[in-house]
Amino acid sequence: MDQRHIKFFKKLVGAENIYDDKAHLIAYSYDATRAHFEPDAVLFPRDEADVSAIMAYCDEHRIIIVPRGAGSGFTGGALPSSGGIVLAFERHMNKILEIDMENMVAVVQPGVINMDLQRAVEEVGLFYPPDPASQEYSTIGGNVNENAGGMRAAKYGITKDYVMAMRAVLPNGDIIKAGKRTIKDVAGYNISGILIASEGTLAITTEVTLRLLGKPKMTKTAMGIFDTVDKAMEAVYKTMASGVTPVAMEFLDNLTIRAVEQVYSKGLPVDAGAILVTDVDGNLESDLDFQLAQIEKVFRENGCTEFKIAADEKEAADIWFARRNASQSLSVYGSKKINEDVTVPRAVLPQLLKEFYAIADKYKINIPCFGHTGDGNVHTNVMVDGSDPEQVKIAYKAIEEVFQATIDLGGTLSGEHGIGLAKAPYMGMAFTDEEMNLFKTIKKAFDPNNILNPAKMGLD
Amino acid sequence: MDQRHIKFFKKLVGAENIYDDKAHLIAYSYDATRAHFEPDAVLFPRDEADVSAIMAYCDEHRIIIVPRGAGSGFTGGALPSSGGIVLAFERHMNKILEIDMENMVAVVQPGVINMDLQRAVEEVGLFYPPDPASQEYSTIGGNVNENAGGMRAAKYGITKDYVMAMRAVLPNGDIIKAGKRTIKDVAGYNISGILIASEGTLAITTEVTLRLLGKPKMTKTAMGIFDTVDKAMEAVYKTMASGVTPVAMEFLDNLTIRAVEQVYSKGLPVDAGAILVTDVDGNLESDLDFQLAQIEKVFRENGCTEFKIAADEKEAADIWFARRNASQSLSVYGSKKINEDVTVPRAVLPQLLKEFYAIADKYKINIPCFGHTGDGNVHTNVMVDGSDPEQVKIAYKAIEEVFQATIDLGGTLSGEHGIGLAKAPYMGMAFTDEEMNLFKTIKKAFDPNNILNPAKMGLD
Repeated sequence: MDQRHIKFFKKLVGAENIYDDKAHLIAYSYDATRAHFEPDAVLFPRDEADVSAIMAYCDEHRIIIVPRGAGSGFTGGALPSSGGIVLAFERHMNKILEIDMENMVAVVQPGVINMDLQRAVEEVGLFYPPDPASQEYSTIGGNVNENAGGMRAAKYGITKDYVMAMRAVLPNGDIIKAGKRTIKDVAGYNISGILIASEGTLAITTEVTLRLLGKPKMTKTAMGIFDTVDKAMEAVYKTMASGVTPVAMEFLDNLTIRAVEQVYSKGLPVDAGAILVTDVDGNLESDLDFQLAQIEKVFRENGCTEFKIAADEKEAADIWFARRNASQSLSVYGSKKINEDVTVPRAVLPQLLKEFYAIADKYKINIPCFGHTGDGNVHTNVMVDGSDPEQVKIAYKAIEEVFQATIDLGGTLSGEHGIGLAKAPYMGMAFTDEEMNLFKTIKKAFDPNNILNPAKMGLD
Repeated sequence: MDQRHIKFFKKLVGAENIYDDKAHLIAYSYDATRAHFEPDAVLFPRDEADVSAIMAYCDEHRIIIVPRGAGSGFTGGALPSSGGIVLAFERHMNKILEIDMENMVAVVQPGVINMDLQRAVEEVGLFYPPDPASQEYSTIGGNVNENAGGMRAAKYGITKDYVMAMRAVLPNGDIIKAGKRTIKDVAGYNISGILIASEGTLAITTEVTLRLLGKPKMTKTAMGIFDTVDKAMEAVYKTMASGVTPVAMEFLDNLTIRAVEQVYSKGLPVDAGAILVTDVDGNLESDLDFQLAQIEKVFRENGCTEFKIAADEKEAADIWFARRNASQSLSVYGSKKINEDVTVPRAVLPQLLKEFYAIADKYKINIPCFGHTGDGNVHTNVMVDGSDPEQVKIAYKAIEEVFQATIDLGGTLSGEHGIGLAKAPYMGMAFTDEEMNLFKTIKKAFDPNNILNPAKMGLD
């Protein structure tokens, strides 16, 4: 990058708020994918005015900007794949500005870590439900830009269901507010509706106003063991359709159960077709018991051979252990894991898994599956030997078939992780030319010079 | 309109699906405002392909199109204020296409009446919460385009919280799908997020996929009487913040109570400052009783002098009578009513009402208020003698001050009714030039020739 630009930025934000040395550029070249691209510089804006000045300057000089939260994304959304500036919010724009208990709202800067917000609001009896697996390090800015989900989505929905208002800076430097601290607001276009999940390609988020709930007073955990994954998947959607809405309804298939058992020796039922793990919550013991009784009834009607309710927190933690340690245990099946987060309408889960296992059989590989079945979201793990190029090629062929099966069943390429770079090649499978054209038209309207996170989402 | 256009449309949709005679044009010139504008023709598309062909033709020939549901809007969104074609969905595109019980989803065409959908899904034990006051006649297409709210928004949110997917036709005739029958979907831009509440200015909705809930097994109703409106408003947000979420938390102020009593003689407490009416729901009697006990506690701590729980459906209907008949009773205060639906963060409701009454005092007019206080939405009724031009002028001055007070307290011009024509002049009070520019940029991106519902939302 031209030194006169670096000079301008140093003057603007202070020399201490810019990195352009090799070591730091490498540090900001990664995310949770294994891809890496070095930026030309990393800037730490001190406030929204800095962001506005940076954007206006970059737009004028056609300098690329890539916003970055914690860099914990699985699809490369925060990677500077075309160079340019990484805009990092972790140093200054990382404050919880307000917890408004009367209106049950939190106002935060983009760099706030999800779990820090959860803890802060729970301390005062409130509740912020979105809980991506990355909650201990991912930021609200990243969560909003990827529309993060999590374990509790089955009952409580995802990030977009909690964003009431945003402040953002457009590529031309304009600062806008979108939405209000109100449940209802129908004046003007729903700008936050389009900014959510836009992967930092339309505007830079500078502040988010989030809806909070009252913290439910209690949670109970239960698990069901099923002979076949098919029956378990039937039980999932039949439970939800029976009028009970558990907080979480997670599953592990046989391969995943075996992997966890192999690594941790917990006495898991290694011959089971699937385990379902579920949480219910509420303010009254009688309500929780009612929900669990209903879940047990539907489970048992659908082939559940053992149903266990955790008696206390320790037993609940034991039940959750297998689910929480599923992902890392899968390395027993190979050094290379391609982890997708496809999502389908719940009732086709039995068919979806049947098709995934057929793909695995066809290529003689393992595709262990687990995940958030309560909302139709399956973490699909294509496992191969990463040192064997032939196997890696096969894995990518299998992934393409995984996507096709998902789309054919009315599902989506991504329930949580976004498109970024990693899934950009598959956008044409999921969207028509007319739909891709509309995405490109919107991108061009917000960002006519294509300075904001280019090459993401398959739009270039 | 040029007869060759009419000829084209007759050939396209059939002569029986077009009106261009005076009597019918007058019939389609109205909505629930008192404004009226005659269209050049009314078309009844038979299906999405018709909509696409009509749009492509109109785009080419720069013919204006105004989509129309039931014409029940309060802000003129469905009025052909610049002439052109009214596109009406009531005749053909009015079907419930599917109620998918396994995935708890309904797929409907835009002309389906809200209450018909509610009844159809309740018959099979499911629940579609959005319940605008117009529910007996307004359509889902109109509800989506205006992002309709209703009584149950305090607990269940508004239309946007239930739209999972849409099909729509762009002004150039392109047909697009947005979203999926899944809780999670983060692939591509959130197009339905921006189409919702766009008042038919960006695209024509041709199909909507709506999320359904399990129907709660029971509902109970209660009311509280308060000496002052101030204390009642304190009780509203303190109840919500205490961790209970009633389905509805509605209020009537003293002027509204007196009006209903004058018209219906129901023995209402005409000296009360306010009445709050609340519904709770759930699947267990113990849960409902828990919620009501909590509400009574907070109410009594905040100046409630009388709290009554309805013992049966008849008593519940009696409690709701005053609220349901509030609007029409207000004519006792004058022949002209300007009814706004401003919405603020709940905790500033006491302050907001204080300011509204100060405006009334200043102009020596009555501004009775009632509405959905559980979500901060106040129906503010500026009442004057409509035959006195001086009074009408005063009313509009008062309305401007009502809006300014609302905006100053962090509220919005409209919680439910939209902007349309009626509130277009006030957009500059609520949005900065940068925000208005963004709206215009988005409008131009979707509709470069400005054929779709022009002159609405203050964008022209």
